[in-house]
Amino acid sequence: MSNASEINYFTESGSVESVNVRIDEQADPRLRQVMESLVKHLHDFAKDVELTQAEWGTAIDFLTRTGQMCDSNRQEFILLSDVLGLSMLVDAINNRRPSGATENTVLGPFHVEGAPVREMGDTISLDGKGESCLFEGRVLDLKGNPVSGAKLDVWCDNADGYYDVQQPDIQPQWNNRGVFVTGEDGRYAFRGIRPVSYPIPDDGPVGQMLAALGRHPNRPAHMHFIISADGFETIVTHTFVADDPWLTSDAVFGVKASLLAAVEPGDAGDTMWKSRFDFILNKAGKD
Amino acid sequence: MSNASEINYFTESGSVESVNVRIDEQADPRLRQVMESLVKHLHDFAKDVELTQAEWGTAIDFLTRTGQMCDSNRQEFILLSDVLGLSMLVDAINNRRPSGATENTVLGPFHVEGAPVREMGDTISLDGKGESCLFEGRVLDLKGNPVSGAKLDVWCDNADGYYDVQQPDIQPQWNNRGVFVTGEDGRYAFRGIRPVSYPIPDDGPVGQMLAALGRHPNRPAHMHFIISADGFETIVTHTFVADDPWLTSDAVFGVKASLLAAVEPGDAGDTMWKSRFDFILNKAGKD
Repeated sequence: MSNASEINYFTESGSVESVNVRIDEQADPRLRQVMESLVKHLHDFAKDVELTQAEWGTAIDFLTRTGQMCDSNRQEFILLSDVLGLSMLVDAINNRRPSGATENTVLGPFHVEGAPVREMGDTISLDGKGESCLFEGRVLDLKGNPVSGAKLDVWCDNADGYYDVQQPDIQPQWNNRGVFVTGEDGRYAFRGIRPVSYPIPDDGPVGQMLAALGRHPNRPAHMHFIISADGFETIVTHTFVADDPWLTSDAVFGVKASLLAAVEPGDAGDTMWKSRFDFILNKAGKD
Repeated sequence: MSNASEINYFTESGSVESVNVRIDEQADPRLRQVMESLVKHLHDFAKDVELTQAEWGTAIDFLTRTGQMCDSNRQEFILLSDVLGLSMLVDAINNRRPSGATENTVLGPFHVEGAPVREMGDTISLDGKGESCLFEGRVLDLKGNPVSGAKLDVWCDNADGYYDVQQPDIQPQWNNRGVFVTGEDGRYAFRGIRPVSYPIPDDGPVGQMLAALGRHPNRPAHMHFIISADGFETIVTHTFVADDPWLTSDAVFGVKASLLAAVEPGDAGDTMWKSRFDFILNKAGKD
């Protein structure tokens, strides 16, 4: 502990305590915990690198421009969180599962509630573009039993690398989206296109930061899934095309080793490609 | 070091390395150092508090609103930096001085270049408001020798707690501002008003954060000084009225114990108050 002068008045060495001692005793305990840790890590960062006034000014300008880039269609602060690995970290902290259960990855900004429920085997591709691909597999519990009545909400970009909501005047509504519900056998199957990689929006401050770090903005090709079933934890995840060139350098760090799905030549007379992946659900209320 | 899978693909335990390994070898070395430290402290923070998805969302929203509060007259991110003690910390890191030399404090947003040069003893108060106060003292080097030709650029708020630039239609231009240059004796003297405390702008996201933490927005009464002289380090500082009620709880942590200046009754027939303070300059190029 510092002496009274170091708490009441600012000193470089006592800076963290100077700030945190001001939080009122009546403040929400969780808010106190979060803010005390934030101030400690923020000050430790500035001390570790001996941040200059000019660098501080650059940071203020960067954060300001990031906020001002946001509107109803663009959330540049989420993008910043994504490219710093923070979004994936928060997702990981909040979705720890036992070994064997399918892992989460980031939701991303393009999920839309209310996609049409389709019959098993139906296609989700409505624009006729891209290389056809069959997605199939099972929804199982941790003991290998099929999960009946599991809802799979799936979505992906089109062959040009855009989601339907990014091109409302070009793509049919609900293009490359659908909801499928498993039967007794726990199996799912739907047709779509072989996913294609695409860049995150890089015409703003986050793109400038990536460029300065020598990082590309691309995400490896993937299919999004939200899988929910009564009595099980909901999974928010992707499967990733296992030979994608951006697989080990996803701009938002979404790839986990367990989420790779080989895309192989399809069966004669059916789709060009097929992608098999089994999803393993963890019982709700268990870790 | 982690194994290849932990570097290439995201894991909770290897999250920092996952992100930092992506910085290109050709990136600027200082940028690399700053970003690696930022990512480490940011992830350590999220792990320390086990940040929830909801809290992350609140933070994204807060930062977005902070950016969108900024315009040509309002810099909410600087205000955020101020109330988290970061502005003072960066100032301290970049202005370390030997014992005995006058310490820096934050510049603040209200300095204006080009204030009128006035004669020693002149007043800077042009609006006739407030309790009159004489400011006097010496500018000395670390050996106690007077510094000749030292320029003192001084400014403060008026009796209502506003700087002239905040009330361009109400206050005379250059109200409570002036530049004074010392002679051979190193002495300075000017008349103005006894400084009054005022709140920082608290009608935005930063004000909401302060309220949630049970912190008030007030700054203790102070007079701003920039003191420059050939061959010496420039000092950016304030003197603080030594009996101000907010002295130990300045919303921006600007107060250092060495910067308190007693404000005492003035001499008969002169100003109501007087405030004496000697400024001690450090030779340029020395630490």
